[in-house]
Amino acid sequence: MGAGGLRTVEWRDGALVMIDQTLLPGRLERVEARTHAQVADAIRRLVVRGAPAIGVAGAFGMALAAREFGGGTREALLGALGEAREALASTRPTAVNLRWALDRAMAAAEGAPDADAARRAVEDTAVAMAEEDVGANMEMGRHGAGLIGDGETIMTHCNAGALATVAYGTALGTIRAAREAGKGVRVIATETRPVQQGSRLTAFELQHDGIDVSLIPDTAVGYAMAQGMADKVIVGADRILATGHVFNKIGTYQVATMARAHGVPFYVAAPLSTFDLESAPGDVTIEQRDAAELTGTGGRRTAPEGVGVINPAFDVTPPELVTGIITERGVARAPYRASIAALFGAK
Amino acid sequence: MGAGGLRTVEWRDGALVMIDQTLLPGRLERVEARTHAQVADAIRRLVVRGAPAIGVAGAFGMALAAREFGGGTREALLGALGEAREALASTRPTAVNLRWALDRAMAAAEGAPDADAARRAVEDTAVAMAEEDVGANMEMGRHGAGLIGDGETIMTHCNAGALATVAYGTALGTIRAAREAGKGVRVIATETRPVQQGSRLTAFELQHDGIDVSLIPDTAVGYAMAQGMADKVIVGADRILATGHVFNKIGTYQVATMARAHGVPFYVAAPLSTFDLESAPGDVTIEQRDAAELTGTGGRRTAPEGVGVINPAFDVTPPELVTGIITERGVARAPYRASIAALFGAK
Repeated sequence: MGAGGLRTVEWRDGALVMIDQTLLPGRLERVEARTHAQVADAIRRLVVRGAPAIGVAGAFGMALAAREFGGGTREALLGALGEAREALASTRPTAVNLRWALDRAMAAAEGAPDADAARRAVEDTAVAMAEEDVGANMEMGRHGAGLIGDGETIMTHCNAGALATVAYGTALGTIRAAREAGKGVRVIATETRPVQQGSRLTAFELQHDGIDVSLIPDTAVGYAMAQGMADKVIVGADRILATGHVFNKIGTYQVATMARAHGVPFYVAAPLSTFDLESAPGDVTIEQRDAAELTGTGGRRTAPEGVGVINPAFDVTPPELVTGIITERGVARAPYRASIAALFGAK
Repeated sequence: MGAGGLRTVEWRDGALVMIDQTLLPGRLERVEARTHAQVADAIRRLVVRGAPAIGVAGAFGMALAAREFGGGTREALLGALGEAREALASTRPTAVNLRWALDRAMAAAEGAPDADAARRAVEDTAVAMAEEDVGANMEMGRHGAGLIGDGETIMTHCNAGALATVAYGTALGTIRAAREAGKGVRVIATETRPVQQGSRLTAFELQHDGIDVSLIPDTAVGYAMAQGMADKVIVGADRILATGHVFNKIGTYQVATMARAHGVPFYVAAPLSTFDLESAPGDVTIEQRDAAELTGTGGRRTAPEGVGVINPAFDVTPPELVTGIITERGVARAPYRASIAALFGAK
C-alpha cells in the first residue's frame, strides 16, 4: 500500500504547485501560485477543488501570505494573515475544512513569539497538514476497504479522489485500498453536472490507475440501481454535522435516496476535519454557483438567453439515508450523535 | 385556447417539413424530407423527437415511401411499404407510438383496392394523425389544467412540449392550458442530460410562449424538492403499460422517487396512442444510446478516451409512484389496470 500516483498540491521552493483540474481530462498540467491571492483565485476557479485539497491549499495560501509580508512586527504579520484568511475563506463558504485549515494556520502564527517564528510556524503547519491528509486517506482506505467485497461494483458521485485531496483520495481511497488488498473492484461514476467532476476527474484518475470505471449520466442513477448494477455507493463530503447530516456535491441526496429505495448501502468517506460539530442543518450556507455552468457546455450555449437558473453547489443528505461514515479513526454508524462523538472522544 | 405557436412537423407539397431540434436553442430552422430514408435519419439524429412527434413523422415517412414507389401492383407497393415500415421502426425501438403510427399507415394501405388508392390512403392517414395529435393535446390540456392550482410551480423533465408533438405539447400542453384558463404558473425544467432536451427545448419553447421557466441541473431535483420549490411534477411518456408502468426519458424514475419522498404529486401526460396494453415491463427494450453523448459536450471532450459508458435512453417508473396519468379521455389513477382499461373502454 502506498500513496503513489497523482499528487494534487505540492509545496516546492516556496511556491504551491497544483494540478490544473480545469484542463482535465484533456491535459495534465500544473500551475504555480506564489501569492495567497493566486491561491484564492485557483480555489474559486476550481483549479483545485475537493474539500481536503482546498483546505491544504488554503493553509499554503497562508504560508504564501506570510512570505509576502515585507517585514515588520509580529502584530503586523498577524494582521496581514487575518486579511489573507478572510480572502481565502470567502472563496468557498460551505467547505468546512477550508475554514478549519485557515484557523489552524492562523493559530500556529499566533502561538509564535515573533514574526520570523510565525512565518516558519505557518509554513510548517501547512506542510504537516498535507502529510496528515495523505496519512488520513490511507487510514480511511484501510477502514473502507473492509466494507468492500471482492468483485463488487461501487457507485460514486463527483470526485472524492486523489484529485480532491493531496493524494490517494477519500471515497476513491477506499477503492484503491480494496484493490491493494487484492480485491476485484469496479466503479460506476456519475457525470456530476454541471461541472462534470465525475467524467473529467473521477473517470480520469481511476483510468490513470488502471481501475475499471464506467460513466453514467446523472439521470441514470435510478436505472443503474434498478438493474442491480451497484453493490454499494461511496461518496465524499464537504461538511458533516454532529447529527450525521452530510453536505456534499449537488445530487448526492438523490443518489442516497435511490440507494435506499433499492437496498444498496450508502457510505460517506471523509476525514475528521470535514466535521462541523457546532452547526445545525439550517445554519449552513449552500452556495449558488454561476448560471453559466448550466446554460452552456464546452463553450456552446445549450439554453436560451435570459432563462432563469437554480444552480446550488451542494445538497444535504439526512443521516437516515447514510449506512456509515468512514473516517481515519473508524466507521461511524447510526445513531450518529453517539458514534461521531465517540470518534472525536478517541482523539 | 388555440394551438398557435411552434409546429414541429408539417406536410407541405409532398414534403415533410420539420423544425431541426438539433440546432435549438441557438437557431430555429426547418429541414425538409422528401424520402422515407430522410425521415428515418431525422428520427435517428433527433432532428425530430418526442413520442407523438416521431409517430406522426413516421406516418409521413410511410406517405413518402408510397410517393417514392415508381409504379406497379398494389402488392409491390405493399412490399415497399413493409420495408419502409421496418426501416422507420428500427430507429427508435422503445417508442410505441412510432410502431403504432406505422402500423396504422400500413393498415390504411392494405385496406385500399389498388396502388393509387393505397398511396392516397397512407397520405390521408398521416394528415389525419397530425390533426388528431393536436386535438388530443388540447383535450389533455383541458384535463390537466384542472389539476394545476393558480400560482403553482410545476417541475418537468425532458421535453414533452410542442416540440415533442405536432404542436401544443402533452405535459407542457397542460401548463399552456392552465395559463390560458387564467392561472399563474411557473415551470422548473431539468436540464435532462445527456441530450439536454430540458435546457435546449423546454426552456426554449416556454420562453418562446412567455411562460416563466427556471433551469436546474439533473442533480438538483432532490434539492429543489427539499426546498419546497415544486408543487407538482408533470412529465410525458414514451410508453405506458396496462399496469401503469411508465417508460420515459432516462431520469424520470428518480424524479418520481424524489417527488414521492417529498409528497409532491407526480403526473404523466400522454395520449392513448402511447399505451401498450400487451407488453409486460420486462418485455420492453431500453435503447442504449451512443457513448459520445456522454463523453463530450458541445464538441469538447469531457471524459478520458476509452472510458466505459452506460447511456440508456429510458427508464421505468412503477405505477406506485404515479399520482395520475392525464390523457385526452381523462385522468387515470390507481388502481391503473382498471382505470386504464376504462379509458380504452370509453372509446
